Amino acid sequence: MARHFADRLTDAIVAKDAPAVVNIDPVPDRLPAEFRPAAATGRETDPAGVLQGMRAFCLRLIDIVAPLVPVVKFNVACFEPFHAAGIQVYDDLIAEASRRGLVVIGDVKRGDVGHTAAQYAQAHFNEAPPAATKTPDAITINGYLGWDGVKPFIDVARDQGKGVFILVRTSNDSAASIQDVVTQDGRKVHEILASLVAQWADESDTLGDSGYTSVGAVVATRRSDDAARLRAAMPRSVFLVPGYGAQGGKAEDYKHYFKADGTGAIVAAGRSIVYAHGSPAYQQRFPGDWSRCVEQACRDFIGDLRRIVPAHGAKTPPH
Amino acid sequence: MARHFADRLTDAIVAKDAPAVVNIDPVPDRLPAEFRPAAATGRETDPAGVLQGMRAFCLRLIDIVAPLVPVVKFNVACFEPFHAAGIQVYDDLIAEASRRGLVVIGDVKRGDVGHTAAQYAQAHFNEAPPAATKTPDAITINGYLGWDGVKPFIDVARDQGKGVFILVRTSNDSAASIQDVVTQDGRKVHEILASLVAQWADESDTLGDSGYTSVGAVVATRRSDDAARLRAAMPRSVFLVPGYGAQGGKAEDYKHYFKADGTGAIVAAGRSIVYAHGSPAYQQRFPGDWSRCVEQACRDFIGDLRRIVPAHGAKTPPH
Repeated sequence: MARHFADRLTDAIVAKDAPAVVNIDPVPDRLPAEFRPAAATGRETDPAGVLQGMRAFCLRLIDIVAPLVPVVKFNVACFEPFHAAGIQVYDDLIAEASRRGLVVIGDVKRGDVGHTAAQYAQAHFNEAPPAATKTPDAITINGYLGWDGVKPFIDVARDQGKGVFILVRTSNDSAASIQDVVTQDGRKVHEILASLVAQWADESDTLGDSGYTSVGAVVATRRSDDAARLRAAMPRSVFLVPGYGAQGGKAEDYKHYFKADGTGAIVAAGRSIVYAHGSPAYQQRFPGDWSRCVEQACRDFIGDLRRIVPAHGAKTPPH
Repeated sequence: MARHFADRLTDAIVAKDAPAVVNIDPVPDRLPAEFRPAAATGRETDPAGVLQGMRAFCLRLIDIVAPLVPVVKFNVACFEPFHAAGIQVYDDLIAEASRRGLVVIGDVKRGDVGHTAAQYAQAHFNEAPPAATKTPDAITINGYLGWDGVKPFIDVARDQGKGVFILVRTSNDSAASIQDVVTQDGRKVHEILASLVAQWADESDTLGDSGYTSVGAVVATRRSDDAARLRAAMPRSVFLVPGYGAQGGKAEDYKHYFKADGTGAIVAAGRSIVYAHGSPAYQQRFPGDWSRCVEQACRDFIGDLRRIVPAHGAKTPPH
């Protein structure tokens, strides 16, 4: 069995001195021209060619970011439009990123009633047959169904050294219409879920040596008071915080997700890095060289994070 | 483009005189022995053999239930443990069920922020390349992210004659811990979501000739007062109601999900039908004949539903 997920994650963050996640979410139209067969030939191409271009682009991205960041995240939604062939590529990329020593998160946002959740847990964590493939170190899951919808994921994660990140407060504009509704005891809906997450984590024997459990949370709110409240409500959960860069966040907005010692959160950036070749600023600096654009955007992202969480650099390296 | 989803669904229900859905959710261990290579040989078998058994069993189930019920539902969670090969079988079964004239629901419970939800919508509705395959007539989605997480699904559904069922109140024991939390205005969380669903449906130009929109809801609560409130809150949404049979529900419990005219809901049964060969009562009646067990369980299910929604039989057949 792999070591405890949160411990492996903590070590990886310290080793790279950056609580950073790069989202590798390929969108065919946005790839550099060399990965778009249709752009090269000026004609429509077959789906297999498009998928092949996505795969090649993602493998190059893994190459570029593997020395820089501890974690990559793949959103399965980018691969499902290609059906079985897309899932094969998703699996291939997870295996390759793992081989390169990256901690891998599968952003799958699965969630269902208990016996079905168990099937999903099997699908996304199991590495024995019938999977017979590397699976992500952690996945995102939806907690709207409550304990019996998340328990199968937590149990399998604990037993296999994997982790989960439960959606608590999402980053999208309309999340507030449900997640921020105030309940009778004065707490918002997402705070109710947060205290359940803390309870589920505590009751599941999931605490690692790092002081964090394998039950994390997806947390994104621009309100610093909400962030601080959530940090207090889930003291032993690592936060996966989306929204950096293309979704409009700046490093300062993320300070409240971390503890005073600089631990407790990982910040994810996607489009602002993997499509940096489309940004005039990077284009001007590295004309025609998409991979240098990506590398620089990744370094800038990490630099930003180091400014707000300086403690990481001062920590004792992992034994 | 296919006709409006809710209109096609309504016609199918009237044609079969039953608001019934059979869940085809294969679990390898529970298949009749002839579909389990390991059971036949007494040895471990390869994953491809297990998947082949699942596929063959599901194709036979489609054969058996196609003349009886209007709708089948496939839960993709049963196929994801087999990764790419499993998704291929899931797609094959959807195509076959469609070919047999069944309305097909993909129980995928997807949900994510807007641009990612759009990828999922493409994945599960699109039938042009790169899909190049039949997709479900409707899918289940998770609404915890609010409007921008469901809009891409609703838009694609409307444009392609498809439908969605948004999870409002799920059937599992612990759903109440979040979904039934009382908010400041006295409504439960799931009621807040229900009124959003009604609003989203109304504002999306999704109303069909049947009087129902292509924006349905997954609704399951054993409390008849909650069911009645939800029926009133979402007057133009078809309810997909799980939990019949193996999940403990009886037909009488479902009465409140229907309108007085017998329309407005479809009731889903799964394990109690597809694994009827494991039930002593059916085994005794049809010893050694699993398919007769399934057929009889399906007929019993339909009979139960007809007792509570007699109006269906009295309706004018579709033109």
